[in-house]
This record gives sequence, structure tokens and C-alpha cells, in this order.
Amino acid sequence: MQRLQSYLDSHGIANWPHIKTHKIPAIAQMQIAAGAAGITCQKIGEVEIMAQAGLRNIFLPYNIIGEAKLNRLMELAQQIEISVTADSAFVVDGLAQAAQQHQVTMPVLVEFDTGLARCGVQTPQQAADLAYRIDRQSNLVFDGLMTYPLNERTDSFVQQTRAILEKDRVSVRRVSVGGTPQMWQAHEHPVVTEYRAGMYIYGDRYTLKSGAMKLEEVAFSVITTVVSRPTPDRGILDGGSKTFSSDLVGLDGYGLILEYPQARIYSFSEEHGHFDFSDCLEKPEIGERLTVIPNHCCSVTNLFNEIVAVRDGVVETIWPVAARGAVQ
Amino acid sequence: MQRLQSYLDSHGIANWPHIKTHKIPAIAQMQIAAGAAGITCQKIGEVEIMAQAGLRNIFLPYNIIGEAKLNRLMELAQQIEISVTADSAFVVDGLAQAAQQHQVTMPVLVEFDTGLARCGVQTPQQAADLAYRIDRQSNLVFDGLMTYPLNERTDSFVQQTRAILEKDRVSVRRVSVGGTPQMWQAHEHPVVTEYRAGMYIYGDRYTLKSGAMKLEEVAFSVITTVVSRPTPDRGILDGGSKTFSSDLVGLDGYGLILEYPQARIYSFSEEHGHFDFSDCLEKPEIGERLTVIPNHCCSVTNLFNEIVAVRDGVVETIWPVAARGAVQ
Repeated sequence: MQRLQSYLDSHGIANWPHIKTHKIPAIAQMQIAAGAAGITCQKIGEVEIMAQAGLRNIFLPYNIIGEAKLNRLMELAQQIEISVTADSAFVVDGLAQAAQQHQVTMPVLVEFDTGLARCGVQTPQQAADLAYRIDRQSNLVFDGLMTYPLNERTDSFVQQTRAILEKDRVSVRRVSVGGTPQMWQAHEHPVVTEYRAGMYIYGDRYTLKSGAMKLEEVAFSVITTVVSRPTPDRGILDGGSKTFSSDLVGLDGYGLILEYPQARIYSFSEEHGHFDFSDCLEKPEIGERLTVIPNHCCSVTNLFNEIVAVRDGVVETIWPVAARGAVQ
Repeated sequence: MQRLQSYLDSHGIANWPHIKTHKIPAIAQMQIAAGAAGITCQKIGEVEIMAQAGLRNIFLPYNIIGEAKLNRLMELAQQIEISVTADSAFVVDGLAQAAQQHQVTMPVLVEFDTGLARCGVQTPQQAADLAYRIDRQSNLVFDGLMTYPLNERTDSFVQQTRAILEKDRVSVRRVSVGGTPQMWQAHEHPVVTEYRAGMYIYGDRYTLKSGAMKLEEVAFSVITTVVSRPTPDRGILDGGSKTFSSDLVGLDGYGLILEYPQARIYSFSEEHGHFDFSDCLEKPEIGERLTVIPNHCCSVTNLFNEIVAVRDGVVETIWPVAARGAVQ
């Protein structure tokens, strides 16, 4: 937490950590106390829980659609500082109408696509057109550009959009980018003004693979037990897809067993992890407790009701995962 | 629910529905009211929640290991009828010691492997040896055999084990098998005395693929909204891996969109579903609500706090998913 904050501080980039990874208000408060400008949420449900816990500056980079969700958004905006994104006229118009009804002024960023092929406008001209459309609405303010992930296309897209908008003196105040794997490259992109990282708070096997964190920095694991050894080289753990999720995130296998790094978790049932230890010199026994670093910490957090915080082998606190399942 | 119950009744097979799929005590009570002999749980945490809700006959086909879990198991066994499984001497010895300490008599079935390569002894001789070991313990009773899934290997494995045990007058009272895809074939396996089906209660895309249920019988879907249409043929739903899980269960794509059956959900981010509708004659618009049948209902239930029960378009009740996240 401190290391990313210091890095971003030293480059004048605002830190907006993404709470989707931990979903725990107490950790969000620690991120703010360490110097974050605000937090990022991915769903209105998450914003509601964080606002209730006292978080006051929240970025929700999501297309909010439909009367029910727009009403919830505007009610939140009456209490806290909240900004959102849009990538279509449909979203902008919905936000405008709801903001007017609730007498709220809503800052809106335009999402653009840097190649992930998820949401986001495709061209700088589309981004500029949407920026104009936002600024024409009396209760919306065009606040800047947002994308994920940060990559080599980001700067030129922002520069081209800015060039179009400057002619009409529309300024791009914020350029928000994200992604834990790329976080230490943020300073190489001069257009970036804010950074959203989520997984950096814990780390996982995917973060390790990306090189953004080292094994000794990873602060997230699941303690499991070997419940069966049906054959000489096959073991079964008491954790499966309902513990670790089925997320592969491009990796081979479903987790790293710290005590047997050569073992391979090759498949999951719902409550069983199937692993092969033919490459291990020592073989695990039934009843042995094993520490597993999951592929993707965000989806694992979302499966648990509580996270146990351990320092030097001693339980320091147990955090309820307050925003678990807040997908609406 | 009624259809499976009638089918099993007509063949003299006891119904032990698996509650891992719904995790809702009210539905378990409905299953018992419809004629089930008991319910099946996969984790002690699930048993605890179901026992609290008044369920009295529970089968836990899992290797229970470690003092803490064995204590919880035996405390439950002092209140309700509960049976478990074992596939190793280690598990049997742990159960025996804990049962003796708690002055409980615990029925234990031996799990065998019909080819899934998960837990389970590998040969009829191993099954018989474990049956003898169970029966030698003063507080354990060998109650029968258990496997998953039901398949063509099941009968011969049971018959061979039975042949070995009969010499010593050890009887195999229960033969418990499971699996929604194979449920209508249960009567073709004369050795089977009990059936555990989980997904039959809802159905999903995997159940449809297996042919065990028809589309009009599937009672489980997620209502989503199209939040973005970045290109002519790509749409983004407001539900991703934290709504649907990443379970592929051998299928192509991540769900069936009822309104656009030709559309293909080809990937998920955590809160976004990426779908391609190039094969659809009509194209969905931003803001449109779409009904998605997920690949695997068990993992979706586990991600939600509540299930909304709808009859003829009217909300009839909202069930809390009481045993969600009960993986310990």
C-alpha cells in the first residue's frame, strides 16, 4: 500500500485504489489514510456500502443504466463526491435526465477502449463527440477520459482526443487508467493523472506472473487441507471452485501451493481441488495443511464472508467482506 | 422436484437431494415435504445451517479431517441423523477417535472412484478393506458405498465389493450415487439404493446440454442489462465472473441469452459479460434487459445473497441463500 502510494506521489499521479479486490471498508480507509485521493468501485452496491462506511470520494467507472440504478446513483451523489463514466449517448442522456431530476451536478468521464475490447468508444473522434454531448447537458460536467488497461495505445488516444477538444476549449482534466500488472509503468505515460489499482493490495498468482509483485509481497492465501490421496501422485484439497473460483486468467493451473511449488492444481470440483504432485520430491500426506496462493484474488475475496488478517503468525483482526456479492 | 421424486419412488430408490445447488433451507424443506428421505450437503458449514433450520437427516459425502471439523461433525451427530464417507484409513481413524470421544455412533460409507479421478478408493478390494476397518471401530458402522457420478462402472464395482464382503457377512446396505445429468438412468442400475441430484432443482445450460431437462423446465436465470455496444456486433452485459462464475463445465461460451439464442457470451471480466451477436438477425440495444441461463447454477447461487422466486411474472418470495460461502 505504502509503496504504490509513494511511487504515484513521486510522479504526481493521484491514487484511486480499486476496492473491488478487497471489498472491505476498513482497508479502503487505510488506503485513504495512506494518501489515496479517493477510491474506485465497480458497482453501485459497492459505492453504497463504502459511502455508508464513511468514504467520501468515489469513482465509479461504469455505465449506469436504468431508472432504479440512476436514482440510487443520484441519491449517493447528494451525499458524497462521486463521478462516473459513459461510452454512449444513451448513457449520457440517462445520466443527464436523472441528474436534473435530483438537482445534482455529475462529473462524467468518457471511457475509451485501448484494445481490451470491453466497453469504451473506439476512436478519439467518438470520445470528443461524447465529451461535447456531456458538456451540453446542464447537470453534467465532462471531467476527462478513462481506460483499462494502461498500455502503449493510451497516450496517443488521449493526445488525439485532447487535440480535437482543445479547438473548442474543452479541457481533459482527468485521465484515469488502471491495472496492477502495469502499475510501475504509470510514470512512463505522461498523459496519466490518476491510477486505479486493485489487486496490488493483496497480490496473487497472476500478479506474480506479471512481475509487478514478488512472492514475499503477496499478502493473500487460502489455507487448505489434503483430504484424499487416491493414487501415488494425485491429491485432493478441501477447496475447489467455490473457494478459488474457476478463474484461469491465462495461467496454467489453478493456484500455487507454497509448500509444494512443483505441484500442479489441474482442476476443481465445487469443493475439491485436484492436484498432481508427480514432480515433487517430497509428497504431501492426507491431513496436511497447505497454503495456496490463488490465481485471482478478486474473485476469491468475493467468495468469502471474512478475511483473516495475520501478522507474524498471529491473527490480528477478522474483516467481514462487507461488499461481497454487491453486483447490483 | 415432483417429477424426480415420483420417478425415484416408482423405482424404490431413496431421494437424497443435494442442497449445494440452492443452499436455501426453505427449498430443502420443500424437498423433504415432497418425499425426500433426507438431504445431502457437501461441507460441515452447510450441514450446520440446514440443521439449525430443522433438517434432521443429512448425508455428508466428504472426508472430514482435523480436530476442529471432527468436533463440529460429532456435535451435529448428537442432534441429528448424519452419515459421512471415507476413502482412506486416515479418515476412518479420525472419525473413530472423534466418535468415541463424543459417544456418538457414526454411519460411514466408503467412497469409490468411477472414473472422475477425484476422491474414492480405486479397487473393490480397497473398498472392502476400508469397510472392514470401519466395522472394527467400536463407534463406527459401515453403511455402504458412495460414488459420483453414476456411470457404467458403478454396478460392477459394487457387485465385486459386495462379493468380497459377503464372505464375511458384512452387508452393503446403502449404495448412494449422484448426478443430475444421469438422474433418469438411475433405474437401469439395479445396485443403486439412493440418489443425490443437486442441479435438477433449478437446471442450467449444462443440464440442458445433458438432455436431462428441457428449456421450459429450467427455473433459474439472471436478469442483466446491455450496458454498452462498442461495435456493431459486440455487446457488454452488466454481469461477469462475479455474477456467473467462470465455470465453463465443458461448454462453449458462458451462458444462454434467451432473447438472443444465437448470441455468444465469449468472455467475462468481473462485472462485464462480453457477447457477440453477429449471428443474430435482430440486434440488442443499449439498455435492453436480457435473461441469461448460466452454464452452472451451483456456482451462480453461491455468488448471490438472495434468490428471487417468480411465478407467472410475479415475485412470490425472496429467499436468502443461507449457506452461501459455507465452505468450511
